[in-house]
Amino acid sequence: MITPVILCGGAGTRLWPLSRKSYPKQFTRLKGELTLFQSAALRLRGKDIASPLVVTGSDFRFIVTEQLAEIGIHDATVLIEPEARNTAPAILAAALWLEKSDPDATMVVMPADHTMPDVVRFRAVVTDALPHAQGGQIVTFGIRPTRPETGYGWLEMSDPGRDGAQPLARFVEKPPRTQAEEMLAHGGYLWNAGIFLLTARALRAAVAAHAPEILAPVETAVSEATQDLDFHRLSSTSWADLPNVSIDYAVMEKADTLWVQPYDGEWCDLGDWETVRRESPDQGDGVATAGAATAFDCRNTLLRSESEGVELVGLGLENLLVVATPDAVLVADRSRAQEVGRAVQTLKARGIHQAEQSPRDHRPWGWFETLAIDDRFQVKRIVVKPGGQLSLQSHLHRAEHWVVVSGTARVTIDDDVTLVSENQSVYVPLGATHRMENPGKVPMVLIEVQTGSYLGEDDIERYEDVYARSESD
Amino acid sequence: MITPVILCGGAGTRLWPLSRKSYPKQFTRLKGELTLFQSAALRLRGKDIASPLVVTGSDFRFIVTEQLAEIGIHDATVLIEPEARNTAPAILAAALWLEKSDPDATMVVMPADHTMPDVVRFRAVVTDALPHAQGGQIVTFGIRPTRPETGYGWLEMSDPGRDGAQPLARFVEKPPRTQAEEMLAHGGYLWNAGIFLLTARALRAAVAAHAPEILAPVETAVSEATQDLDFHRLSSTSWADLPNVSIDYAVMEKADTLWVQPYDGEWCDLGDWETVRRESPDQGDGVATAGAATAFDCRNTLLRSESEGVELVGLGLENLLVVATPDAVLVADRSRAQEVGRAVQTLKARGIHQAEQSPRDHRPWGWFETLAIDDRFQVKRIVVKPGGQLSLQSHLHRAEHWVVVSGTARVTIDDDVTLVSENQSVYVPLGATHRMENPGKVPMVLIEVQTGSYLGEDDIERYEDVYARSESD
Repeated sequence: MITPVILCGGAGTRLWPLSRKSYPKQFTRLKGELTLFQSAALRLRGKDIASPLVVTGSDFRFIVTEQLAEIGIHDATVLIEPEARNTAPAILAAALWLEKSDPDATMVVMPADHTMPDVVRFRAVVTDALPHAQGGQIVTFGIRPTRPETGYGWLEMSDPGRDGAQPLARFVEKPPRTQAEEMLAHGGYLWNAGIFLLTARALRAAVAAHAPEILAPVETAVSEATQDLDFHRLSSTSWADLPNVSIDYAVMEKADTLWVQPYDGEWCDLGDWETVRRESPDQGDGVATAGAATAFDCRNTLLRSESEGVELVGLGLENLLVVATPDAVLVADRSRAQEVGRAVQTLKARGIHQAEQSPRDHRPWGWFETLAIDDRFQVKRIVVKPGGQLSLQSHLHRAEHWVVVSGTARVTIDDDVTLVSENQSVYVPLGATHRMENPGKVPMVLIEVQTGSYLGEDDIERYEDVYARSESD
Repeated sequence: MITPVILCGGAGTRLWPLSRKSYPKQFTRLKGELTLFQSAALRLRGKDIASPLVVTGSDFRFIVTEQLAEIGIHDATVLIEPEARNTAPAILAAALWLEKSDPDATMVVMPADHTMPDVVRFRAVVTDALPHAQGGQIVTFGIRPTRPETGYGWLEMSDPGRDGAQPLARFVEKPPRTQAEEMLAHGGYLWNAGIFLLTARALRAAVAAHAPEILAPVETAVSEATQDLDFHRLSSTSWADLPNVSIDYAVMEKADTLWVQPYDGEWCDLGDWETVRRESPDQGDGVATAGAATAFDCRNTLLRSESEGVELVGLGLENLLVVATPDAVLVADRSRAQEVGRAVQTLKARGIHQAEQSPRDHRPWGWFETLAIDDRFQVKRIVVKPGGQLSLQSHLHRAEHWVVVSGTARVTIDDDVTLVSENQSVYVPLGATHRMENPGKVPMVLIEVQTGSYLGEDDIERYEDVYARSESD
């Protein structure tokens, strides 16, 4: 059995304002019907393939299970990192976790935010490379380069004439432009996609040899992991000591047991808006639009409206990346695609909430968004998924009017429990203990009108919560 | 007595998406606390100045009175044109209207969308020029040119050495660039600002001499005008025959009784976004921002967020005009500022509602906006000004929940009349006859949640309306 290990921690701020810390890019529909994370979870399925193991952060645990449920995956293992520490600790934790139940565990490690649509071909190369991994080699998949890309590491093949797996000659760190051009022209080099096939045992040995300082803390974090609902929380005590280190730097650039498996199928790391433009269908002159966007006389320009309600117009533009969401708009020169993350850091430092917060706030029971806010009132749209339950709670500073506009709610107010259906409303007085649930089979949509002198999310006293959330969660 | 005549008809689509057909630029706060129209209405006040006469379209009549009331003007005369026919019919109608009560009526004609902040200086030049107007001359105000502008007409002075009023040598139509440069270098030329001081009698005589075809239809429209609340509606029967013609073309370029009064004060026709950029405070490198906008390493770029809730970020931009509203975003090259109107026409032809409709729908009783809309529900914020009354109405396809979040509403549902105050709600069943009023002294804000199978504005049966509106109004 091979276990797909999906690395699902990062924030991807270069794709702001679509991707934000509170809802990063792997969970968005950047391309097609599925999110990037869902595509990754479906990439390797079938006979001899175990259910996926996902390594993610605490903030994303309910999004992970919700997005897996949407595609029918109910048996994934979700490991929660106390804090993001780059890829080396995350991959090692996954390996040690699998090793507990299977000393011969074999895994395919993949980032959650790549596109790789040809699942049949991917499955075939994994099968081809499997004997080498089971023989103790670490196999890295190498993508055929199509341009002198300076944003990726490169892999030098030992036997460029050969299509199949072969020993890796060497890792090349992200090269300068001229070196990238030389490698592209010369041939025999592949892009490092950060996708690996290996046994847990081989990784443990490589880490022990080349990055021994991370082994003990990760072992402790795994052995002291605690269960939280269906999630597994790695222990935070030793995790805090771990360096922030990539698997490439910690192990791959040093190990001598590396093989490379060329991959000729379509692959893309949608890491920035310029890449999204290049990978989108060309509507002429390098223009790509998405959503309610219209380009008049533009060239080499991306125009994306991420909301039905926002009409985006570009007029006479060249070399621009424009992304409009309901609460934030980015307009960047194409050459600055890599600097978007830095701009977002500046916004964050200025206290601008759009830097990190998405308009929709995802919770284990569904999501909500603010429709209007003023000094003394706030209007929210709240969507509760079938079976979802908000915590039993009360507020000191606000009363709430709830109008159900779709589906049916079961509402508890103090000791009364009532069913509230479409076009009915209830009033929750200030101080009343209340809970909202969706007992039905379809999503329940409710408009909440809050009035009061203080309307912050932190005016909440929680009495019971089926999702075992802490106060700040 | 001099009557300020304010021309307040046009749409200004080059300033889309801020300025739209349903709420054009003169009513927006493009610069400062007052709208352009309010600034125009306050430009000429005091002894010997009559209350203003405003010529506008039917769609804008309540906005005009509301914006005048905000600045304490309650005695303006509002003439409603059946259709916009450019400046000649509008100015002539104003002249003939004033002539009815004062055969010696003198007026200052000014567009509603110019900025001219130095009211003391403007008042002084009007006073200087007055004897010439009262002597039968038509006095046009000429602005000292500061650049070779090709977007305005120019005025050649007969006595360039003189600061005061003087006979006009000739009108120069919008010139090509080289001619504009020559006039600027040569001196003795001014920009035609479209601001005139003249008697009604002089205008009637000039029209009779140079554009006799418009005299009779406008006379009929004025003599057959009807009263509608406090508005005066020019009769539409003869209006339809009028040509669309500017006062410059119809009269000024032909009359020989023209004088020009140089004006050295600040003046600006904020007609397009490039002009707005140029006239905004320069934050370095030609960058101007407004609202929640941040420029990173930009040059000669305008970044305006017209909504508190929309964060706009520009990164590495040059020569761009970016304007973000909650429902539409424009990104245009600076050189395309004049083409924005044409792009908006294309959007309109494609049925995109943002081409003409503003997010806020202004009504005589206040305004409303849609906060969320779906197949079977809609959420609106409704603001009713003190004394405002919505029509007595009913709906065939929707029920409504009303939650008052600020102020007090008097609500009629069938035969019941109740006062509903902050944090109270009422339910309006499908089919019920209902009315909402604000009997208080502060604006009343209400959240309306509609549910039903059809939610269009045209599902309305009106029984009584204090604003005498028609079905389509």
